[in-house]
Amino acid sequence: MSDSNASIRSLEPGRDRRSVRILDQTLLPHAVETIRLETVAGAAQAISGMQVRGSNLIGVTAAFGMAFGMREDPSDAGLENAFESLVHTRPTAVNLRWALERMRTLLKPLPTRSRSKAAWDEAVAMVAEDVAINRAIGENGLELFRKLLARKKSGEPLRIMTHCNAGRIATLDWGTATAPIYLAHQAGIPVHVWVSETRPRNQGAALTAWELGGRGVPHTLIADNAAGHLMQQGLVDAVIVGADRVTSRGDVANKIGTYLKALAAREHRIPFYVAFVGGSVDWTIRDGVREIPIEQRNARELTHIQGTAADGRRLEVRITPEGVVARNDGFDVTPSRLITALITERGTCKANAAALKRLYRR
Amino acid sequence: MSDSNASIRSLEPGRDRRSVRILDQTLLPHAVETIRLETVAGAAQAISGMQVRGSNLIGVTAAFGMAFGMREDPSDAGLENAFESLVHTRPTAVNLRWALERMRTLLKPLPTRSRSKAAWDEAVAMVAEDVAINRAIGENGLELFRKLLARKKSGEPLRIMTHCNAGRIATLDWGTATAPIYLAHQAGIPVHVWVSETRPRNQGAALTAWELGGRGVPHTLIADNAAGHLMQQGLVDAVIVGADRVTSRGDVANKIGTYLKALAAREHRIPFYVAFVGGSVDWTIRDGVREIPIEQRNARELTHIQGTAADGRRLEVRITPEGVVARNDGFDVTPSRLITALITERGTCKANAAALKRLYRR
Repeated sequence: MSDSNASIRSLEPGRDRRSVRILDQTLLPHAVETIRLETVAGAAQAISGMQVRGSNLIGVTAAFGMAFGMREDPSDAGLENAFESLVHTRPTAVNLRWALERMRTLLKPLPTRSRSKAAWDEAVAMVAEDVAINRAIGENGLELFRKLLARKKSGEPLRIMTHCNAGRIATLDWGTATAPIYLAHQAGIPVHVWVSETRPRNQGAALTAWELGGRGVPHTLIADNAAGHLMQQGLVDAVIVGADRVTSRGDVANKIGTYLKALAAREHRIPFYVAFVGGSVDWTIRDGVREIPIEQRNARELTHIQGTAADGRRLEVRITPEGVVARNDGFDVTPSRLITALITERGTCKANAAALKRLYRR
Repeated sequence: MSDSNASIRSLEPGRDRRSVRILDQTLLPHAVETIRLETVAGAAQAISGMQVRGSNLIGVTAAFGMAFGMREDPSDAGLENAFESLVHTRPTAVNLRWALERMRTLLKPLPTRSRSKAAWDEAVAMVAEDVAINRAIGENGLELFRKLLARKKSGEPLRIMTHCNAGRIATLDWGTATAPIYLAHQAGIPVHVWVSETRPRNQGAALTAWELGGRGVPHTLIADNAAGHLMQQGLVDAVIVGADRVTSRGDVANKIGTYLKALAAREHRIPFYVAFVGGSVDWTIRDGVREIPIEQRNARELTHIQGTAADGRRLEVRITPEGVVARNDGFDVTPSRLITALITERGTCKANAAALKRLYRR
């Protein structure tokens, strides 16, 4: 794999100050194409169609969606319409609402003539913030990695398992779960990543393997089913995942299959880390299993898959019996008691209400 | 889905007494095609290429392979050659060796002129035995299902989760793990099956969904990743899987991913059953995690997938970045302590050495 993808950003604000260019993640790893967004509807579509994905990137894209809305119609009604068009595009990611509320809070008191510029500037500020925040997550996670490494024989790589893609293309640059991995790799610490495929959308195989490859980080793709076996065989030093929503006590909603990895990690006393930004915390809820709504996604994600044929054509094939009924829960919830530590831009902490509250001074 | 597949057998001995016709399971669910086998090499190829699969069916196919060998060369050298050609085709399935040793033990003392006929007759007898044995597993498992059902509200279906395909096409008719499900369905007991896709070869999606559909058993396909979430949501009454190899104390090697389901089932106090025939027990080993060799399969099973395109063409597509490194462990081991009960043709028992020994009077 070439290094060429390392320079491609998940989202780049346009110099025209009225559009952004996003990487169309639904085409990866088969094609690298970007799309220009400049309307509320376009931003909403890119989020719901998962051309942008990952809680941080969803939040920032939604913020630009608000900026587009303020150019289209800066009235109070326009503000509410843009908010409503964007807030329901993905039900699980709490950053989406967090970013939209931040925009609304900023814009509402402003005179309508100032809203468009202010919205654009705020969205651009969120890009820079996200880069800095994720780098901070990386530094905090790196400290944990160094402690794990100290227990190993010198020269042995730290073997880290990931799930889904909480990588640099799920954010604005570093990723959440991947930030410590990239920083470790940059620092010359030997790391090896077990990349879980992450059915049914294969974000691990399609996105994480693609971006790690682009930056030269050693990795091996595995079936999600292999996670328990590799842990049982002593081949995993840590698991690190991202989060779509975190409750006030540290329960974590993340891509379906995260919970199985957490159960297996506990069984084998392997540290299980969750990396996320403060905006992913939903302070209004406590019990994730009972209170986090789980997005039911299209069954077609299970029954069909996109690939590249031998002749280089990109196409979708059906991989199941015709007409099969499928159920496609997009996320699951990992209770805080299975989580070794939370890694945030504010530092790391145990997964419980008191520790999380202390970190964010709530 | 039509009922038409209900009459298609995984293997049918030829009336010519010199060949068998097998269902080519690598093409399912996209095409239903059979292949005629009549040589040792052909039988070996069908096993290693997974055109036949499932521990019981592998054993019976290998027995016919021995019969083909005895027609080709009934000498002692021919016997050993056939044995050697077949015994290494799949490393994990113990039935393979069991069936081959049974054939060799029968054939070795016979004069060479009698060997061909005796081998054919024995292989045919094994077909009938397998049908009877799996039916017995079904009846024993059905008793457990009835007990679970008695605890539920009247009319609610029993929700059973499967992994891989230990179905009728993994055996000669009933399947091992599916036998109780088919018998329950026939008896008018409401059942609903959560069919796990079973990456990377998708035997659940491609085979179990196909055969349950053919017999009209209600089922829903899920990603392997969803197993823990469905259990956590209280939507699973029991898990039932097959086995490729069982140790003397009841540790079970089965398709990769079984172990994760067992861990999740224990967490949620959901019964976890393993159904298998006596030939799957390897009495020479005790600790499955340490002693069962795990087959490393081709990485291509992870990086490529076969499907049907919109124009009806069947083709293979690549679903990962080009050149990605993948690791593909075919099986994992579930320690006996995670297993609620073993279901065999001799009855059901706890998963421990004493109980298993008692069942088989060893």
